[in-house]
Amino acid sequence: MPSELRHDPIQKRWVIIATDRSKRPTDFLADHAGLAEGPFCPFCPGHEDKTPPEIAALRANGSAPNTPGWRVRVFPNKFPALMIEGELERKGMGIYDRMRGVGAHEVIVEGPDHKLALADMPLEQLVEVMGTFRARHEDLLRDERFKYVLIFKNHGATAGASLAHSHTQIIATPVTPLAVAVELDSARAHHHHKERCLFCDVIDQEIDDGRRIVYLDDLFIAFTPYASRFPFEIMLAPRQHRHRFTDVDQAEVAGLARALKDVLSRLKKALKDPPYNFMFHTSPNTETTHKRAHYWQSLRFDFHWHVEILPRLTKVAGFEWGTGFYINPTAPEDAARFLKEIEL
Amino acid sequence: MPSELRHDPIQKRWVIIATDRSKRPTDFLADHAGLAEGPFCPFCPGHEDKTPPEIAALRANGSAPNTPGWRVRVFPNKFPALMIEGELERKGMGIYDRMRGVGAHEVIVEGPDHKLALADMPLEQLVEVMGTFRARHEDLLRDERFKYVLIFKNHGATAGASLAHSHTQIIATPVTPLAVAVELDSARAHHHHKERCLFCDVIDQEIDDGRRIVYLDDLFIAFTPYASRFPFEIMLAPRQHRHRFTDVDQAEVAGLARALKDVLSRLKKALKDPPYNFMFHTSPNTETTHKRAHYWQSLRFDFHWHVEILPRLTKVAGFEWGTGFYINPTAPEDAARFLKEIEL
Repeated sequence: MPSELRHDPIQKRWVIIATDRSKRPTDFLADHAGLAEGPFCPFCPGHEDKTPPEIAALRANGSAPNTPGWRVRVFPNKFPALMIEGELERKGMGIYDRMRGVGAHEVIVEGPDHKLALADMPLEQLVEVMGTFRARHEDLLRDERFKYVLIFKNHGATAGASLAHSHTQIIATPVTPLAVAVELDSARAHHHHKERCLFCDVIDQEIDDGRRIVYLDDLFIAFTPYASRFPFEIMLAPRQHRHRFTDVDQAEVAGLARALKDVLSRLKKALKDPPYNFMFHTSPNTETTHKRAHYWQSLRFDFHWHVEILPRLTKVAGFEWGTGFYINPTAPEDAARFLKEIEL
Repeated sequence: MPSELRHDPIQKRWVIIATDRSKRPTDFLADHAGLAEGPFCPFCPGHEDKTPPEIAALRANGSAPNTPGWRVRVFPNKFPALMIEGELERKGMGIYDRMRGVGAHEVIVEGPDHKLALADMPLEQLVEVMGTFRARHEDLLRDERFKYVLIFKNHGATAGASLAHSHTQIIATPVTPLAVAVELDSARAHHHHKERCLFCDVIDQEIDDGRRIVYLDDLFIAFTPYASRFPFEIMLAPRQHRHRFTDVDQAEVAGLARALKDVLSRLKKALKDPPYNFMFHTSPNTETTHKRAHYWQSLRFDFHWHVEILPRLTKVAGFEWGTGFYINPTAPEDAARFLKEIEL
């Protein structure tokens, strides 16, 4: 069968799916996600003085900040990409534009155990981690300088991690990133024409079709996108329409933890602990930029938050950089089938 | 000094430039560009029967196709991402779109010497290679099914190369890739407002400023873009307005070879043979889609072909995938200075 071009209605991106020689999980000699371990881990309990002072932590009653006894701990990145202080100082430079690198860059250590990966943590711990994601996100949205808050994880050296102790990062940026702007444009145009949420339509079609579903319960769906860029790429989203991540209630926080644990465990078992990234895509910080309630209401259907999970199994080469479209050697229908067949 | 956000007017992309801890060439422990060598190279003279039959070759008088004696040799990729035969068969699948994977995928072996990298080839050989790029590009543009022709190179395993013998690839695709569409949109909007070419304006400003120039002669400029995504990223472009790559005359082919050799040699020496990709960005195949001469004339200023050169020194992690914007630890002004100071 010849290869096939598929178009993603959200990212407006064509992908080449090489269906004739679809690769199985065993074809990917994953760079082991493990990292060369230094002798010292600044994220372990007892080393709290080796990180900047904590912003938040879940603690057993009575333990003091920046001491052991925490279950989840949040602090500023010691080497931040963006600085929390100062104004943006936007400025034109002829044809170019610049502003100061103002933003937030935080680290969330997901648990005290140095060896435990997110996929292997008990469900209750994952629920606390997801709750911490929501709380930090909510807090950062209050800052009017920040247009976007990105929660992301690098697991394994190939995926960009530099420390092995399981952690997630949050970066708040003063501009809406291009990748999110493209998704917003798609979703707005769809809503303008059809008065429906684009993501809800995609989810409906995926449930009707069924071939790409990896996980499904009352609250969440995880599926391999029709035009997946990468082998075993997964989108995880709430089934009910939810504009932004911070709209989730406590039941959905627990549901997210359950779905994420299921999917990460399947990937880990199927692909032998592959390096991966996940990123939360949510709507930009429109509340601080649009004060009119009417306009704001109409925007509630222009996005639907979701998590992208990208195992890093293939190299991104000149073709991908040169075009922004991708050659995927594993059909998403095959990837979903492999993952569903895994026994957890 | 705090980090800085910079906006690229062509790619409409924000980049974080971490100016406070700008990295020098020696800070990048480049994955060596070298590849583990198999015992057998299908690209070497004498092994012509191990590749698909050649499409074109520069040959000494008298040598037959698919035998030794060539200086540059072109043949279809043995494992093509897209197939040359058949119609597109566009089809909607509910909210999704698909078409058959029709296109061309060719390999250009740049010389008979297995060990010689492009940067180290004699200038005359590079002129022949660039002339071959143009000839193949021109030929593929005649096929009305193809909207875009991408010339790209993967040098080194990290950059996606799988064979060490120096070669470039060409892929012709039936759709305009997203990355090019974004650049086209920017350039069209600029021309619509100002009746000038966006790229010409950028080049003018770079020449006036001077701090980011790596190479400059009468015909070509190479500079580190103001909002470089990666350390030591380079844009190489003709100084005179040229809509598409195939518009270049023979003097410009020679000029391109000279500029590319200079820049690749500087990168090789400064960064110890880093892995890199280059990609030719040119306008889509509008001639086959727009028959009206008037409309066509107005489009001659909506693009300006150029080469992107991307050394692969940093890992792309979750932040970049999640947002489409980049953290660059080397200010482009510093990168240009390091490269200019190299003695060739």
